[in-house]
Amino acid sequence: MAARVSIYDTTLRDGMQGEGMSLSVSEKVQVAHLLDGLGVDLIEAGFPASNPKDHELFSRLEHETFHHARIAAFGMTRRRDTVAADDDALRLLGASFCPVITIVGKTWDLHLEKVVRVGRDENLAMIADSVEYLVAQGKDVIYDAEHFFDGYAADRHFAVRCVQAAAAAGAVNVTLCDTNGATLPGAIARATADVLAALPGVEVGIHTHNDAECAVANSLAAVEVGARLVQGTVNGYGERCGNANLIAIIAGLQLKLGYACIAAEQLARLTSVSHEVAELCNLAPATSAAYVGRSAFAHKGGMHVAGMQADPRTFEHIEPSLVGNARNVLVSELSGKGTVREKAAAFGIELDGAAVERALERLKVLEHRGYAYEGADASFELLLRDEAGEIEPLFLLEALRVITEKRADGRVETEATIKLRVRGERVVQTSEGNGPVNALDSALRAALERHYPGISTLELANYKVRILNQHSGTGAVTRVILDTTDGHDEWATVGVSANIIEASWEALVESLTYGVRLRLAAPADA
Amino acid sequence: MAARVSIYDTTLRDGMQGEGMSLSVSEKVQVAHLLDGLGVDLIEAGFPASNPKDHELFSRLEHETFHHARIAAFGMTRRRDTVAADDDALRLLGASFCPVITIVGKTWDLHLEKVVRVGRDENLAMIADSVEYLVAQGKDVIYDAEHFFDGYAADRHFAVRCVQAAAAAGAVNVTLCDTNGATLPGAIARATADVLAALPGVEVGIHTHNDAECAVANSLAAVEVGARLVQGTVNGYGERCGNANLIAIIAGLQLKLGYACIAAEQLARLTSVSHEVAELCNLAPATSAAYVGRSAFAHKGGMHVAGMQADPRTFEHIEPSLVGNARNVLVSELSGKGTVREKAAAFGIELDGAAVERALERLKVLEHRGYAYEGADASFELLLRDEAGEIEPLFLLEALRVITEKRADGRVETEATIKLRVRGERVVQTSEGNGPVNALDSALRAALERHYPGISTLELANYKVRILNQHSGTGAVTRVILDTTDGHDEWATVGVSANIIEASWEALVESLTYGVRLRLAAPADA
Repeated sequence: MAARVSIYDTTLRDGMQGEGMSLSVSEKVQVAHLLDGLGVDLIEAGFPASNPKDHELFSRLEHETFHHARIAAFGMTRRRDTVAADDDALRLLGASFCPVITIVGKTWDLHLEKVVRVGRDENLAMIADSVEYLVAQGKDVIYDAEHFFDGYAADRHFAVRCVQAAAAAGAVNVTLCDTNGATLPGAIARATADVLAALPGVEVGIHTHNDAECAVANSLAAVEVGARLVQGTVNGYGERCGNANLIAIIAGLQLKLGYACIAAEQLARLTSVSHEVAELCNLAPATSAAYVGRSAFAHKGGMHVAGMQADPRTFEHIEPSLVGNARNVLVSELSGKGTVREKAAAFGIELDGAAVERALERLKVLEHRGYAYEGADASFELLLRDEAGEIEPLFLLEALRVITEKRADGRVETEATIKLRVRGERVVQTSEGNGPVNALDSALRAALERHYPGISTLELANYKVRILNQHSGTGAVTRVILDTTDGHDEWATVGVSANIIEASWEALVESLTYGVRLRLAAPADA
Repeated sequence: MAARVSIYDTTLRDGMQGEGMSLSVSEKVQVAHLLDGLGVDLIEAGFPASNPKDHELFSRLEHETFHHARIAAFGMTRRRDTVAADDDALRLLGASFCPVITIVGKTWDLHLEKVVRVGRDENLAMIADSVEYLVAQGKDVIYDAEHFFDGYAADRHFAVRCVQAAAAAGAVNVTLCDTNGATLPGAIARATADVLAALPGVEVGIHTHNDAECAVANSLAAVEVGARLVQGTVNGYGERCGNANLIAIIAGLQLKLGYACIAAEQLARLTSVSHEVAELCNLAPATSAAYVGRSAFAHKGGMHVAGMQADPRTFEHIEPSLVGNARNVLVSELSGKGTVREKAAAFGIELDGAAVERALERLKVLEHRGYAYEGADASFELLLRDEAGEIEPLFLLEALRVITEKRADGRVETEATIKLRVRGERVVQTSEGNGPVNALDSALRAALERHYPGISTLELANYKVRILNQHSGTGAVTRVILDTTDGHDEWATVGVSANIIEASWEALVESLTYGVRLRLAAPADA
């Protein structure tokens, strides 16, 4: 029977310390449900302060149904020279609905002297009193030993006494924190093993930061010597270099080290949870993320592709579907005819040898100009279908014009006019928008609506801009990627130009062409 | 005396397998010089093929002066059932100027069966023959044992025999490769220790990939049991989830584990080398990168800032200047008056209490609308100086208009017209550009030139666009960051709007205002 390790997520609290991180109350509730669906055991939601935003979060969480996860509130040990029962923050924690309270406290002399100016005995009393008080309120208390590994290195005896004080006062778990991210796996393992030996019967957890790019390995190392709870955040979000990445930790513990954290069907949600939390945080999912990145199972060399066809184990460390990811054969400059053929087959396009060569040639020219099809499969499919002679354009462009004006009073107005021939009919359409691309998008949809009625069901889901040669200043080349959805599927198209309006137009036209020709039944076209 | 570990960089070969990676010959030469300046021992440049691009690279490298680094060429063992001396690729390697040749070969049955279809004895002969041939050509040969850890797990005896064959044939080093990135630190340490015991006197290297987010820890683990060469790439660039990140490995080995890799003054170049290589690869340096990221020593919470002021060790795992990085007090929603005051002091601005409060209030409103000052210090400085009543605008805007037109023949034209009052004089200026922002930039400079002659010395160095709420499609809010330089310093400004033209305009105006008011002597203004 595999040993069980509890997963403790602190995305909503420590993760929010990361640069640019910000979630609304309802986004936080969505994240909590995603974590619950993943099978996370504990979700730390922050401190239930009395300000309106935190108050709303905790009252929302109290009334949501979670199938597995328990909500933890987070706070500090009581202030020095006071009584726990008189500490407003501890009272709020004790009165909260949360069944689990995590209390952080000091274990390192340097902090006692320089930051909080508290003596050693008073520090031990602060820990014990705070834990006792919350236990008396019926809470499961986790003690987060801040800066534990630095404290341990400075004075092993005192650091161990601090966690001992928490355990003796009734904490269900003491979690050793590498708050500054200073420690490497060997030292983590030795100190954790020492604590486990000194505190028989106490559950020990681990909380690490990625300042030495070792947070995942540090967490695994602690579990391997007996820690049974891991704190971290989705995708490793957090201040400085981030917290320990729970996504990679769960996969590593379960698929490589044989521990039990979540069910197999929950593990298969790892990729989607990682990406959805990223999107809620308004961050692009990291393409190179371990296990769940879009490139994590990408193959571009010819030998790799051949090897994969013979046996995926030759070039893949795990079966990607176990974590909900998929193999990805990249189209890129390095790709050869084999890759083009494989892609064509996947799209169900028949290409003869000459068409494959033409497509490859065109691809090289376009990629040299800055196009990237690795993230724009729909544009690549259109290119191949075009070589197969399958794609009819939706319209012929006569001219387009976009005007943006700004007045002294600060008002900005944008209008786009397009002149098209759609099935022989000339259409002139002007639309306003809150920006040039938005105005063009509106005008194009309005112009095509009557001929392709389904077009109004296609929605732009995502608009990404990448400046390719940033060093050329505003004269740089712009790559636009548009994600479009029909409510079921999503597809991505690409446009490239020195002019962002032109690049956006190109991606826009391809997104609608793909949608109308390949996703809509296109009845008006029959 | 600290044990010495050799650093082997493969950014120019394995790093180029990463998605979107592409360097010209002269950029590769620049990277090689950066690596040499960092004190890297070996620079793997790829295979010296006879095509023009590789030919040019190797002949350039042959005639460049490197102070410390040696250039290594990379190739494979001879083909099966042939003679090494007849193998064209091995002959090219033997004839190259490179003093070091790295040869990769198989060690895993699965690959012998499924990929290369070679018997075990022939595989051993391929390794031995290839190494012997190159040693006879006077080369130092490194044997890269591909898929070593998978091979070791499948059949320890055969995997060890493969590296033994290379060592017996005269390889100066056998490097154990975790090619698929499957292995965790514990297994890496056990297998590496076993090889070291089985091959006394042979130098062992380590080459890992980041598929389990453990590549750095894996490299450190191998060194801790006796490996004395580490292969990796700058910033961990490489296919899938990347190679081992040499930046974090060098810092970890040297600052935390006490090994000797590079000199202290070279270590202080770590941040600049990391960022310069990123820029050459046209990638934004990762802000959260361990040791060298812009956020690696960022502090935003009030307690952190207070702690840092008492003693940096309280919240920093190393002194940032050791790796050429710097402390960074972030301006953000979470920041308080202390941070604003600290920033104002750093800029040399005197702000009274009321001005601090006004600045903080304005900051909160702006950040809520999508402004981010963490990467735009110049805009933040302007905001504070504005609150101090110090900043005079360069001009008053009457109106601006940008028109982009595209014709049926595909030609795209853009012009911008701006109407300003500069020191009482009305200026109307129209300029063309290759895109809307470029046209605006040209028009604004032309309009201001006569009044602020120094303005032509200010150059846009970098133009970045971030779509904030990507899910709103083309109606999303756009944040533009502009980096501007006067040839000595660089400063960053920010603009935010639903309209990319408006956002760019705002950042542009701030970049020139900052340049004229705070960097130029502004003689015409006197």
